[in-house]
Amino acid sequence: MPSTTVRLDAPLDMHLHLRDGEMLHNIAKESAHTFSGAIIMPNLVPPVSSKEEVVAYKERIMEAIGEARFTPYMTLFFKPDYDREFLESVRDEITAIKLYPAGITTNSEGGVSGFDVEELRPALEAMSDLNIPLCVHGETNGFVMDREAEFVSIYEKLAEAFPRLKIIMEHITTKASVEALERFENLYATITLHHLIITLDDVAGGMLQPHLFCKPIAKRPEDREALLNVALAAHPKVMFGSDSAPHPRHAKEACGCAAGVFTAPIALQMLTELFETHNALDNLQAFLSGNAQKIYGITPLTKEVLLEKRPFTIPAEYNGVVPMYAGEEIAYSLKGVRHG
Amino acid sequence: MPSTTVRLDAPLDMHLHLRDGEMLHNIAKESAHTFSGAIIMPNLVPPVSSKEEVVAYKERIMEAIGEARFTPYMTLFFKPDYDREFLESVRDEITAIKLYPAGITTNSEGGVSGFDVEELRPALEAMSDLNIPLCVHGETNGFVMDREAEFVSIYEKLAEAFPRLKIIMEHITTKASVEALERFENLYATITLHHLIITLDDVAGGMLQPHLFCKPIAKRPEDREALLNVALAAHPKVMFGSDSAPHPRHAKEACGCAAGVFTAPIALQMLTELFETHNALDNLQAFLSGNAQKIYGITPLTKEVLLEKRPFTIPAEYNGVVPMYAGEEIAYSLKGVRHG
Repeated sequence: MPSTTVRLDAPLDMHLHLRDGEMLHNIAKESAHTFSGAIIMPNLVPPVSSKEEVVAYKERIMEAIGEARFTPYMTLFFKPDYDREFLESVRDEITAIKLYPAGITTNSEGGVSGFDVEELRPALEAMSDLNIPLCVHGETNGFVMDREAEFVSIYEKLAEAFPRLKIIMEHITTKASVEALERFENLYATITLHHLIITLDDVAGGMLQPHLFCKPIAKRPEDREALLNVALAAHPKVMFGSDSAPHPRHAKEACGCAAGVFTAPIALQMLTELFETHNALDNLQAFLSGNAQKIYGITPLTKEVLLEKRPFTIPAEYNGVVPMYAGEEIAYSLKGVRHG
Repeated sequence: MPSTTVRLDAPLDMHLHLRDGEMLHNIAKESAHTFSGAIIMPNLVPPVSSKEEVVAYKERIMEAIGEARFTPYMTLFFKPDYDREFLESVRDEITAIKLYPAGITTNSEGGVSGFDVEELRPALEAMSDLNIPLCVHGETNGFVMDREAEFVSIYEKLAEAFPRLKIIMEHITTKASVEALERFENLYATITLHHLIITLDDVAGGMLQPHLFCKPIAKRPEDREALLNVALAAHPKVMFGSDSAPHPRHAKEACGCAAGVFTAPIALQMLTELFETHNALDNLQAFLSGNAQKIYGITPLTKEVLLEKRPFTIPAEYNGVVPMYAGEEIAYSLKGVRHG
């Protein structure tokens, strides 16, 4: 009996942490092997915020991935004092700019601490004119289960004040964010693999599971349901973004564990299984590539990824980093990668 | 300048896990030193469910505490097939019976899996007649943030069907449970130290904190507020119960950490600080002993505990068990313990 084979063209990961140094060398190839490209988050220490830094970081990434056919779509770490001249000078080196509220996640200490429209206007008007999308980590400093829902009013304020600016609500985790997508034409969203699968129950409902702990934290069942609905339908305003965020094992399993789930090497296999389970395989291509191409206006490198319905046991580690569901068996295996 | 001294008479911990074997020997003295007595939870492996087991467990506790002046108020692990004859035979050895929904927390696999009133009637009627309080771990198998609120309807069903049975809602964590206290005369509650202090934010809002992970999990700010209101007022239906639940360091800091916060050695110091901060020191004695004496009809061993307003740094470990807030400084120190 022939097994089911699924073909994906030019998969894109529209939210990826590749880190730097040893970690970059340990994990970049995992994404570069199966994805055609990825939006690379700029929250290094110090954050990537100058033309020299973004060019140099891209070079380090290219070195780390070796011969792989992969585009790192670079981003800058948003600062309110970016002016038009600076943005024009860096436009060709970047695909987007990422805004972090100050102190909200790993290495975000230098982020934005107020959302005063007039203070942000010069930078965001220039980005609108230059057609640079603004990617946003949308959380307040409020109670952990409310942070994203509380941020929706800030998304709306920005969307209204800068109607030509493409605003990407990154790694959304709530029904409230899904609903905001419909209210403003210029709001878009990325959704991770893990937020389509887990809720807070999986993190803290049984034993505490550090390898499923991330920011934003996984929310309620009705939130996951809302995310699944738009992802499985490949709603044209949503894209896959893994938010794959490696930490060394000791930092995840220590007392006071760091936030981040590492999914890059298993994302395509698990998404295929998830979409198949929900009879939505026809929409996977759009969720994984087509929507992002339209929203960002990018044409990715050709790459054809074949997945086969054959059990695959997720390794315990990839170069010292524990992936989501380490040791567990999933339904799809990677069969091959072809360049066009 | 004389420092503030606070005197507590016969403090009682109405919900305590002493475990067994080496752990019992490592930690029992911490409670026995400063508390006059404690309700001892029966969730050993196997659970304490016969007269022989409860007598033998009490003997092991007495041996572990040595010369300390301390009453272990013993409990049985509730089983629906306990009959009147059995309950009469064991009445003098126990202070209460603890009901666990099956599989809901550490070592609760043999608990109750349905809450059919008629199935429970023989045992609960007999307990009513014999004036044996029923202590309940009130959580469903639902979503982790909803489990306790969902259980309130079961509390109400039991309270209505068995109006002469004293039902103790153990370690309540929600506004919903606080409100249920007012609706039924025969519902009472214990409240832990940690649920008066932390919310889910402290467990998973920053880094993940395994030493603050417990069941029921800490809830929302408005839930903590409702708990604080009744505790600080020493509402006559609420009692202190630490739910102090030791695990060895490796079980707390491992991947997939066990639930339980160890507070026994620092509970009185921290409660004194908490009540002082809220100008409620006058109510601490009732919360810590008076209410429990009336609800359970017990007369504890005399013991006078003196606390002094002098900074105390919580040790990193007590015999291999990491306490809540290890290494942090609190405002009150233990000054002395006197027997009456």
